[in-house]
Formats: sequence, C-alpha cells, structure tokens
Amino acid sequence: MHYTDVVVVGAGPVGLFAVFQAGSLSMKCHVIDNLSSIGGQCSALYPEKPIYDIPAFSKVSGQELIDNLALQAAPFHPVYHLNQVVTNIELVGNDFIVHTSYDIKIHCKAVVIAAGNGCFLPNKPNNLDNLAEFEDKSVFYNVNSKQIFANKNIVIAGGGDSAVDWAIELSNIASKVYLVHRRKDLRCLPASQVKIDELCKLGKIETIIPYQLHKLNGVGSSLESVELIDFEQNVKTVEADFLLAFFGLAMKLGPIQNWKLNLSDNHKIIVDSNYQTNIEGIYAVGDIATYHHKLKLILVGFSEVAYAMHHAYKKVFNGKELHFQYSTSKGIHSGS
Amino acid sequence: MHYTDVVVVGAGPVGLFAVFQAGSLSMKCHVIDNLSSIGGQCSALYPEKPIYDIPAFSKVSGQELIDNLALQAAPFHPVYHLNQVVTNIELVGNDFIVHTSYDIKIHCKAVVIAAGNGCFLPNKPNNLDNLAEFEDKSVFYNVNSKQIFANKNIVIAGGGDSAVDWAIELSNIASKVYLVHRRKDLRCLPASQVKIDELCKLGKIETIIPYQLHKLNGVGSSLESVELIDFEQNVKTVEADFLLAFFGLAMKLGPIQNWKLNLSDNHKIIVDSNYQTNIEGIYAVGDIATYHHKLKLILVGFSEVAYAMHHAYKKVFNGKELHFQYSTSKGIHSGS
Repeated sequence: MHYTDVVVVGAGPVGLFAVFQAGSLSMKCHVIDNLSSIGGQCSALYPEKPIYDIPAFSKVSGQELIDNLALQAAPFHPVYHLNQVVTNIELVGNDFIVHTSYDIKIHCKAVVIAAGNGCFLPNKPNNLDNLAEFEDKSVFYNVNSKQIFANKNIVIAGGGDSAVDWAIELSNIASKVYLVHRRKDLRCLPASQVKIDELCKLGKIETIIPYQLHKLNGVGSSLESVELIDFEQNVKTVEADFLLAFFGLAMKLGPIQNWKLNLSDNHKIIVDSNYQTNIEGIYAVGDIATYHHKLKLILVGFSEVAYAMHHAYKKVFNGKELHFQYSTSKGIHSGS
Repeated sequence: MHYTDVVVVGAGPVGLFAVFQAGSLSMKCHVIDNLSSIGGQCSALYPEKPIYDIPAFSKVSGQELIDNLALQAAPFHPVYHLNQVVTNIELVGNDFIVHTSYDIKIHCKAVVIAAGNGCFLPNKPNNLDNLAEFEDKSVFYNVNSKQIFANKNIVIAGGGDSAVDWAIELSNIASKVYLVHRRKDLRCLPASQVKIDELCKLGKIETIIPYQLHKLNGVGSSLESVELIDFEQNVKTVEADFLLAFFGLAMKLGPIQNWKLNLSDNHKIIVDSNYQTNIEGIYAVGDIATYHHKLKLILVGFSEVAYAMHHAYKKVFNGKELHFQYSTSKGIHSGS
C-alpha cells in the first residue's frame, strides 16, 4: 500500500500541472496513467503539432509542453504509475484507496481526475456472450509476459500490425498459432506478410481468413476451443488455450463510469464551482470535467486545477485553512 | 474616433492574453494602460522577480512573461494607448465609446477590464477644499508640457525625487519656483541637494521647509496664491500661477468606480460565470474581477479571459454563433 495526499488520475498536461499545484501547497501526489509514458494525448497523438493558445507561448509542440510541465512538477517528486488504469476508488472513512489494474493500492485524502477524453482501451469482440469469464485468464488484449504462451495453442484475432507481429513473435514459442481475420487481406508490412507465409509453410502459423470469432468454449476461466465463422456461416472449431484479440484501441471513459460520479449526457463528469464531483474529496478537471458553458481548452484546465487543489487543501490537512500567497513571495521549495 | 471590436483596459499579463484570445477569435483590440509601457505590475513592480506558477514555466521573470505574451499577441496588431486612463465608458446603442484621459475616443462592441489592482494614480493633497476647481488648469500631479510654466510662479509640493527634479528643471524657465516640503530634509540624491542649494542662492528656487499646503486662492480655475502652514500654525502666502504636487503614486481603482459597475466591498468588480459585469458587453477579468472563492492567480486570469472572449464573440459579430476549434486545428493567422 502506498500513502500520499492526492492521487491524480491522468498524466496529461492538466494532470501534470496538478502535481505542481499540489506541490506548491505542500501536498504530495501519485499519478496514474494508462499510457506507457506521461503526456496524455499531447504526447501520444500530437507530439510534433504546434499548439498556439498556451499563455506566453507563441507556439509550443505537444511534447515540449509536456516536457516543460514535467520539469515544473519534478521538484515535488511525483510518483508515476504508468501502463495501468484506476479500476476502483474505494471510500475508507474520510479517505480513499485507489486501486489500479496492476493491483497497486494508494491511500490518499483526495483524488483529482484529469483523464482528458478518457483512456485508450482495447476494442473487444462484441459478439461473445461468455467473454468476461475468460478475460485476464485465457483472453487478453495485450501481451504482458510471453512465457505463459510457451507450447500452447493460441488464437490471435485481428488483421493489423499488432495481430501479425504477435503471431510471428509467439510462433517461436507456441505450439501453434491460429491467425484469424475477418477480411481477405492482412493490413501489415509486405515483409511481415512474407514472414507469415513462411511460417504457414512450416506449420507454426495457420491463417484462417476470412473468418471471425463466433464462440468460446471452456471450463471455468480456462479456454479449450474457439469457434470461428465465415460469411457463409461455415463454422470451424480450433483447440486453443488462449485468445489474443487485437482490434485496436479507442478512447473510452473506462472504469470511471463505475465510480458513482454524476455524469453528463456526453459522459463527462459534472463538477461544482470548486471542480468537486458529487463525492466530497473527488475532483474532476480538464476535458473530462463539465459544467455550464465549459470551454475545452488546456489553459482552462490549468485554472480548474488551481481551484481544485486550493479546495482540497483543507481536506488533506484536516481542516487547516490555506493562507493565500503569491508564488513570487514564497518561491518553490522541494516537496521532500 | 478609433473603431475596433474590443477595448481592453489594462496591459498587464491578463490584458495582453486578452488580445491573443480576441485575435484568435478574429476580434481586434485596442488596449489602454496608465503606465508608460505594457506589462502592468509584472513590468513595473517585479520585472526581475521570478514567478513560479505560470503553467509550463518552471520559473519566469515578470518581464519575460510580459515579453512572451506581447509576442503572442503581436500577430493580431493590437493598438496600445499608454500613459492614460479610461475616464468614461459611454453606452451608444448596443456599442460603447471609450474615452481616455488623452481625449482619445474608441468605438467598440465590447470592453474587457483587466486592470489588475487598479492603476497607479497620484496621491493628492487631502486638506484643500477647493482643489478640484483648479485641477488640470492650475494644479497638476505630473508635467505633460513644460512650456506653460515659462515665466510663471510655481509652487512645487513634495520632498522626493520627482519634486526636487522638477524644481531644478522648471527653475530654468519659470519666474520663480517655491519648493514646499512638510519634513525638514528632502529625500533626494546628494547631487540634487547641491543643485537646489545653488539655485536657492541664485534666487531661482526658494525652499519653504517644513511647511505644507494649507489653502488655494484664485479666480475660477486660475490660481493666484497658495497659503502654506508650518507645525506651529504659522501661515505664509506665496503668489503662484501653478501648483505641482508630487506626493507619490498609489494603486487605486480610479475612474472605474464611476462606470456604474457593481463592486464588492473590497472594490473589485463583480462578474457572472461568463466574467460579464452587470453591464452587458463589459467584462472584468484577472485580479480586478471577483466572484465566490476567487483565486487571484495570473493563470486564473488567463482562463477568465478565454471565457470572456468566447462570450463576447456573439455580441461583436451581431449574434453569430462561435464554433469551437482547437488551436492545433486552426493555427494562428494574422489579424489583419
């Protein structure tokens, strides 16, 4: 169990500025993000694209902005937990325990959700009734450890680079890899196609194309076979220990929708004038927060975070009043 | 008469960002400030002092911040009117005519007041009943044109550098300069003291110390004599055509208090959630604006300005709806 003052959900520009704001008010932060590096959409989607409306920057690229914000936050020693989503926020008395998909638990006094437009989550097969029974045991959407696939039969579904690359890679250790795609052609590099053809000749990979997933069979969470179907309704059943589905990523609200927060019709978190949600001590800022007239601008998120952190201060310090000071007067001291 | 879309009152950091925000929404600005250069308190009071809480700047000096904001505003060709205060905002139908103390008139559709803590205005003598009758004709708090003092008798009140320097300077052209100070010693450079002593010997200057202003005598707005008094209540009367009082500058709300805007008890302008005042089309942002929980931070002012400008858009463009776009998509085009 980790202990901190504030957990920030999302390491985009507003989440990073939250660390600075908290730090300048003597509050420490842990930051959780589903991507493998900080920066959110700025780094993931438009690192090189110029942004023109950050105050006092005539032009700044997404990555430069993130680098600057990370540098500004650094003196306060934020702890970043990447590659994972917050699965649950548990209320424990007046405090919270934040749980992540890596089974990390963080005890804190306040939570600031700066999750932008949500997180990039895998698209799942939508026609398999019993999918949930197998997920995280026999069915995966990414590969964390290759070793569990040694000498196993694996169905890999999808026709893009992820599906093709993992089929090639896992064919080295798996007993057999079935590559299933609903279209006639794979969308991959020509060199990868050549490799796939070679591995098919060697019997390491079998392409089952154009077919799609139809049914999962197994006992408990252990997969035993996967039924596949083509456009003429022909069904083919293959023995399989694992299914890997690579259907791309999409921006989704994710587990946030289960946290009992009041959401707007367009799946944003409704906040009050302190940017607090309907749960005391949980705030939402930046693009994921909504209120009347909300402007989705990064600079607006910066301001929201300042308000949220000033408001959270009292809760974090058990009712202590905050006496406002300008940064020019107090300077910046390390958070340690 | 000038014509523009928006008049921004105050050229501090928030006022400068207002120009950028307006420009990025295709609205042109004129900016008015009482100081002789842009930058407000950042430039005037702490140009070298580091500011730590501007997002994406680990540290930036007051002057660097202003330089960056001016650069960001420059593509939209703001027109700056410096060294003057806005004396009145006249409502003309749905529009405004903004009047300044230099008799400049600017016709506009919206006014954004970003006047910080007010403007630096001269401290006035507070014991002269009929002071207002002579102001701007026979009594001044600064010197705009030396020539009116040629061959005249002048009383200069004050003991600091401004009083001393102007006494020396004007003694070249005036008939006689009386330098009146309520304390025994002048607060000036030793070299200036030497000069004063020399000019006293030549009869160009007469120091009347320690005395203070007591009464103004004249006809209409023409001053004829000034009565001075010492601590033992001795009164001395000197013939004078002009009085120049240099009692220092103080941050004051100034003429804003006469614009029929709703003010809070601490002399801030009350705004709604669009940062609009009680007068439609007049907005207030930054330190001079107040609402529940208001945080006086520059970064909060930036956000307020974004909201105010997006709201003003419809009025400026006669009801046209604004379709929100990110700066990365639309880029920045010159305002010309």
